[in-house]
Amino acid sequence: MRKIVKEEIDYYINEFKCLRKELVESYKNFINIEKYNCELKGGIVIPREKIVKGRRDGSAAIILPVTEDDETLLVVQPRVFTRSGVGVELPAGYIENGEDAKVAALRELQEETGFLTDDIIHLAAYYQDQGCSAAFNHAFLARNCKRVGEQNLDKDEFIKFLPVRVDEMYELADLGYINDANSIITIEKAKQYIKK
Amino acid sequence: MRKIVKEEIDYYINEFKCLRKELVESYKNFINIEKYNCELKGGIVIPREKIVKGRRDGSAAIILPVTEDDETLLVVQPRVFTRSGVGVELPAGYIENGEDAKVAALRELQEETGFLTDDIIHLAAYYQDQGCSAAFNHAFLARNCKRVGEQNLDKDEFIKFLPVRVDEMYELADLGYINDANSIITIEKAKQYIKK
Repeated sequence: MRKIVKEEIDYYINEFKCLRKELVESYKNFINIEKYNCELKGGIVIPREKIVKGRRDGSAAIILPVTEDDETLLVVQPRVFTRSGVGVELPAGYIENGEDAKVAALRELQEETGFLTDDIIHLAAYYQDQGCSAAFNHAFLARNCKRVGEQNLDKDEFIKFLPVRVDEMYELADLGYINDANSIITIEKAKQYIKK
Repeated sequence: MRKIVKEEIDYYINEFKCLRKELVESYKNFINIEKYNCELKGGIVIPREKIVKGRRDGSAAIILPVTEDDETLLVVQPRVFTRSGVGVELPAGYIENGEDAKVAALRELQEETGFLTDDIIHLAAYYQDQGCSAAFNHAFLARNCKRVGEQNLDKDEFIKFLPVRVDEMYELADLGYINDANSIITIEKAKQYIKK
């Protein structure tokens, strides 16, 4: 891996460190729990709890971008409940109600990096946490990505993005820098389409 | 795929169908949301919500068993928030507080199938939902699994297990029968160790 890539990631990880977490009760919930009694065919009733995020199932679109220069784009952002406190991930975001997964993936790519393409392949669809959520995620590979503008984040989003070589992305996954389920599945499923 | 495998899975999927889901508020929460204000190094404070399951982070151990007969063992159980209402998965379960991930994986294997082994390889470690959870899952491959007893479930668990050939497991993943993030990651990461 290029020294500059590792240094930049380490820099962001350091910058995004969470210094203090204070338990509060004062603001409106984004995540809510719905409680159900579920009757199975055999007549048995089982209680189950469902995680709902912002009145959505929490389904996400994940996108592995490859640019015209054969680099990929990673995003680094605060993930305060992880050990490092910072995530190194593929671009991703929640699918809006009624939104097509592919549209969501490209929207998130543009918002988080300013890049866009029309060359996109569906890689995988899967439940993120099937015991207690209906979140059904979609993973994509996007090739020939071109810069079309600037990063455009919501005011509560803090995301840095950086181009890395594809082999460096694999190395970052092997080293545990990239360590979320969504990114790992997307990287694994994209391998068949990416030339070594 | 053998006809009998597909038939057995279809049978369980049909048997476990959820007929009715009733929203209730009457029992004690298993899943809870903790709300935090998190101060980043730059002084910015961001609100984040954390999913906690049964006073645990919700970290899980997933295990891909291969028996002495070169078959794997899949579990089928109600997953009431998915489209089919039923999950076809690898054996898995929550890691208890203080429990070693490998111990948890073998415990869950034995509880859900009655099989056990001491030939186990760590495949992957990853955050299941890094934005709002500290759940850090561990995936294992277990070879030379032997039947040592009967399935031993908690009273609120309804799990069928069945042996399938490894190529059938791949086919079930390709067909979307196996469609949860944990099983997909474990299957992908195990491929390097499983002879075709």
